[in-house]
Amino acid sequence: MNLPKKVVLCEVGPRDGLQNEPKILSVEEKVKLIDSITDSGFKVIEVGSFMHPKAVPQMASTDEVFKKIKTKDGVEYRALIANMKGLERAMDCGCRKVKLNVSASKSHNLANLNRTPEQSVAGFKETVQAAASCNIEISGSISMPFGSPWEHEIPVDDVKKIVQAYIDAGVTEISLSDASGMAVPSQVYNICTEMQKEFPMVKWILHFHNTRGLGVANIIAGMQAGITWFDTSFAGVGGCPFVPGAAGNVSTEDVLHMLDEMNIETGIDLDNTILISKMLVKILGHSTDSYILRAGKSKDLILDLPTGQKK
Amino acid sequence: MNLPKKVVLCEVGPRDGLQNEPKILSVEEKVKLIDSITDSGFKVIEVGSFMHPKAVPQMASTDEVFKKIKTKDGVEYRALIANMKGLERAMDCGCRKVKLNVSASKSHNLANLNRTPEQSVAGFKETVQAAASCNIEISGSISMPFGSPWEHEIPVDDVKKIVQAYIDAGVTEISLSDASGMAVPSQVYNICTEMQKEFPMVKWILHFHNTRGLGVANIIAGMQAGITWFDTSFAGVGGCPFVPGAAGNVSTEDVLHMLDEMNIETGIDLDNTILISKMLVKILGHSTDSYILRAGKSKDLILDLPTGQKK
Repeated sequence: MNLPKKVVLCEVGPRDGLQNEPKILSVEEKVKLIDSITDSGFKVIEVGSFMHPKAVPQMASTDEVFKKIKTKDGVEYRALIANMKGLERAMDCGCRKVKLNVSASKSHNLANLNRTPEQSVAGFKETVQAAASCNIEISGSISMPFGSPWEHEIPVDDVKKIVQAYIDAGVTEISLSDASGMAVPSQVYNICTEMQKEFPMVKWILHFHNTRGLGVANIIAGMQAGITWFDTSFAGVGGCPFVPGAAGNVSTEDVLHMLDEMNIETGIDLDNTILISKMLVKILGHSTDSYILRAGKSKDLILDLPTGQKK
Repeated sequence: MNLPKKVVLCEVGPRDGLQNEPKILSVEEKVKLIDSITDSGFKVIEVGSFMHPKAVPQMASTDEVFKKIKTKDGVEYRALIANMKGLERAMDCGCRKVKLNVSASKSHNLANLNRTPEQSVAGFKETVQAAASCNIEISGSISMPFGSPWEHEIPVDDVKKIVQAYIDAGVTEISLSDASGMAVPSQVYNICTEMQKEFPMVKWILHFHNTRGLGVANIIAGMQAGITWFDTSFAGVGGCPFVPGAAGNVSTEDVLHMLDEMNIETGIDLDNTILISKMLVKILGHSTDSYILRAGKSKDLILDLPTGQKK
């Protein structure tokens, strides 16, 4: 099985997870969680987003959180933005990396904005240039490239047009985000193989939701296709924007546990990560879709022969 | 991605799933479920087990269930047995296929039975011969070949000795059963590749529990290694014998949904399968670890553009 020796897990829980929670965490709670994530060895953390506070109240304090977190050299603290206004907030609070997003659904985009997804991306150009001029790194995300809740199948050529639009706008780090949980492993493998071949200059990130239980299998398929950057979310928090009550982002500790067991290096401490997810579950006050929080690590399941109890 | 065009899903929920449920289903409920499973197109169904009714009260009615289910030509209705007594019950009720099981844990077997797992398998010989003489097919299962709760790592050579013991006893259909949920995909791929190479005469079945969320990923790894027979359980019922409250067997509808989306043929009707799992959940009176029951099929998630509602 052709797998990489080393992968990077990007912890997106503080943004994509917490924005789906009814409970709004305090700045102190967020800072404590994010500082612990830094301490666990993550190299990429999605701290929050700069959306309108009325649209996403869970993320209203992102500016303040950025000012208070302890940053570590070599660690990327990124935020999702929608436009120039978001970039301005990023500049003001010391955020050094922002991420833009577009949906791969042409019909959805046309119906809502009267433009294709690639025309939307072209419209990001001013924001990208402004970010470059003040030395803020930029990333682009494409939602639903593996299937869309509007047209079901998205032709891979349509996704390529969006990728090309990002490249034309100056963005060469691109995340493929299966927010509707429609991706399947063979498809992930094929699309990732094709994308890397056609756009070798792009740094790819994969972002899977576990809506239909395929998050981990899709990560494996991505790794087999040569991708080494993956978004995951602590305790598996998050959700599917189109399916109320569905499972969230693929759980960080579940993925990390598997990678550890397969001897794939991440530089992240699994035990600390589990403690952070437990801390989060306590703050949220409800259980989440995390297998490792339920079952524990395989290595912890060593039974004593005479007693049958855990050693 | 090298995947088979066709796979066989063996529905083990009526045995491995229901034996973990506190509620004991009536004969009528079981017969209705199993008949529906037959109607959905499954070619292998694990109907129950012939254990001592005090040890596994959920399976006490297996004899009666076998007498009442509607059987279909070309469909295999199998039962788990522990010994000659179980085989006799199988003969009496018309069961034509039985499965024996041994744990791959040498230290556990030695401590409990003062014999190695392969010595235990050798002890099955009389049962295997008796089955052959009355034309009952026989299958062998090896629990925990990917990792054991007693010694954690199981040397692959130890598993090979058990396989050889099965072959020596006359059993050439062998299931590798990760009942403790410790397997990881790279390991599944490597062990399955090695086993098939060393024992080309064996028909392999893989049986994964979703204890740590890797059931589907392990099935993909098995398929990539060339395995095409997999046990799954309706609604994901089951559990981990060593971790109270852990997730059960990998869910039939989750696996089937993925296979359908990847155009891998099973001959099984997904919609019917989902209805059966919903019927089961209603009978059990609690929700289960099934993603498809929560989120629905990808193909059902087609939203209407003007309304944003489901079409």
